[in-house]
Amino acid sequence: MTTIYGVVDIGGTKTLIGIATENKIIETRYLKTSDISSPETLIDILVEEFDLLISQSNYKDGVLKSVGVSVPGPLNREEGIIHFTSNLDWSNFPIVEKLKKKLSNIPVIIDDDANAAGIGEAVYGAGRGFRNQIYVTISTGIGGAIIINGQIYRGSRDLAGEIGHITVVPDGPPCSCGNFGCLEALASGTAITKKGQQLLIQEQSEILSKLIGQKTLTAEMIFEAVRQGDKACHSIIQQVCRYLGIGLANLVQIFNPEAIILGGGIMNQSSLLLPLIENEMKIRLFKVQQGHVNIKLASLNGQSGLWGALHLAKNHINAIEVEQTCRI
Amino acid sequence: MTTIYGVVDIGGTKTLIGIATENKIIETRYLKTSDISSPETLIDILVEEFDLLISQSNYKDGVLKSVGVSVPGPLNREEGIIHFTSNLDWSNFPIVEKLKKKLSNIPVIIDDDANAAGIGEAVYGAGRGFRNQIYVTISTGIGGAIIINGQIYRGSRDLAGEIGHITVVPDGPPCSCGNFGCLEALASGTAITKKGQQLLIQEQSEILSKLIGQKTLTAEMIFEAVRQGDKACHSIIQQVCRYLGIGLANLVQIFNPEAIILGGGIMNQSSLLLPLIENEMKIRLFKVQQGHVNIKLASLNGQSGLWGALHLAKNHINAIEVEQTCRI
Repeated sequence: MTTIYGVVDIGGTKTLIGIATENKIIETRYLKTSDISSPETLIDILVEEFDLLISQSNYKDGVLKSVGVSVPGPLNREEGIIHFTSNLDWSNFPIVEKLKKKLSNIPVIIDDDANAAGIGEAVYGAGRGFRNQIYVTISTGIGGAIIINGQIYRGSRDLAGEIGHITVVPDGPPCSCGNFGCLEALASGTAITKKGQQLLIQEQSEILSKLIGQKTLTAEMIFEAVRQGDKACHSIIQQVCRYLGIGLANLVQIFNPEAIILGGGIMNQSSLLLPLIENEMKIRLFKVQQGHVNIKLASLNGQSGLWGALHLAKNHINAIEVEQTCRI
Repeated sequence: MTTIYGVVDIGGTKTLIGIATENKIIETRYLKTSDISSPETLIDILVEEFDLLISQSNYKDGVLKSVGVSVPGPLNREEGIIHFTSNLDWSNFPIVEKLKKKLSNIPVIIDDDANAAGIGEAVYGAGRGFRNQIYVTISTGIGGAIIINGQIYRGSRDLAGEIGHITVVPDGPPCSCGNFGCLEALASGTAITKKGQQLLIQEQSEILSKLIGQKTLTAEMIFEAVRQGDKACHSIIQQVCRYLGIGLANLVQIFNPEAIILGGGIMNQSSLLLPLIENEMKIRLFKVQQGHVNIKLASLNGQSGLWGALHLAKNHINAIEVEQTCRI
């Protein structure tokens, strides 16, 4: 009998379901999140998929011991409730209770997507071995996870790490959170696309106009336009990197971490983005900080959240236990 | 025989020397820092003053057990060296070694002024009982101390908490640190005075012109001009509070602390400043954060650093030990 952990990463567009042993995710399956008609359906799918994945694996004697779930949007970890998700019409869904009921009452642990990905990278990925590190995900939105003294830091009401919602430009564009000039409103995938749309409306980028054709504009198209030599699109990306550099430099000034781990879809363009980001950070940072913080790319190939879910499932607590002692 | 602790707060303009029992600072003495001709002189003064203060106190049987020192400017805590201080011509002064030598080798513990004041407030002042809190001092400069899980957080190279040097306005005024638009360059006492000087040059404030006479402009004069109804000076203060509100809101979004403790000379004007700061924070923060963070004024009457020095002296380590366990 092999101990198996169920791991789930519910994303805005895709949902990953997997099974894992102590140190390895052995089988995974992708679903379009939009194909999941209701949260109750997801529960049924998960139960079915765990069974199926175990039966298809080399661990047919596997027994599910616990499940870790990375969820988008605000949640109550203790009560195991997803308050709401931005892309899905789920509100106050008691995912832990529902899933436990169908899984013989084994432990189910949930965490939000940024924390799960940050934990995944810290324990299994690019953040291994760093005592103080910040994980920043740059994707549709911008989120973060703070790891201090080898532990995830959640703040007094589980609201810490809202790195996407620090003000970077006081009179900047409106953000979905209600504020103005948030990092997310200036440098997320959504912000990049909005800037691209402005270019199209103002007919300032022939290359982008050709690329889009009849399709919907994506951040990827803007990166492609940059690669094809489009100056207006390049200027957008320069601005975005400036804001990212400011945001990350602020984190370094505040936390003096050993490492910052950058994840999220936008960082797939790291060869273009990283030099620009690091250049801006250099302008902003104390000289004594320069060269002493490791800026690293997430290394778990889009599965940071799934690995984080494994850590949650294995530990039955929502903390990283790298350090045993408390005193600094 | 009573156990006595020596406590020292070396400031840019004044130096406080005191003695304390376990829970009380019993005698203090002020010196103008500029009257201390060299760091070696300070050592002699300290040794003399500790003796004198004990002999003048109700604890004439007192024996000095250890000394805590709050120092301005960068330092190496482990090696007990002050690298440099901005107002004094001290460089790489081994204060711990020198003082120990003259004090029969009793422990001497140093920390920087922002951390010492933050520790003082957390243990003895306005921050008592808060597990996660940020101390921010707004004075000539802007500094901070981060207390997480009841412990001072120092970062990986003792450089954490540089709250005055987060960028708030990307193209803002130059800061002494080399960056542009730092919170310190926008909202410190120095920044307020610079803005006032501009008003004087441009002859935009009659009230301020009268107040200054032949004297040197201070931030206090600008506050006095506001009290006398000067609109241009009021506008300066509104701007300053806007930037402070943005900086503090950023800290709340990142840390989700239970409390922010505000100290430093500028906060003596809290009745004018706090409503403006809190109003800006309200604009910036997530609704779920609003009303859940205690914004408190430092309560140790300008002696936060001295009380922090007492904690350092008593504990012989540079950490706060509020919590014994590590797991969240």
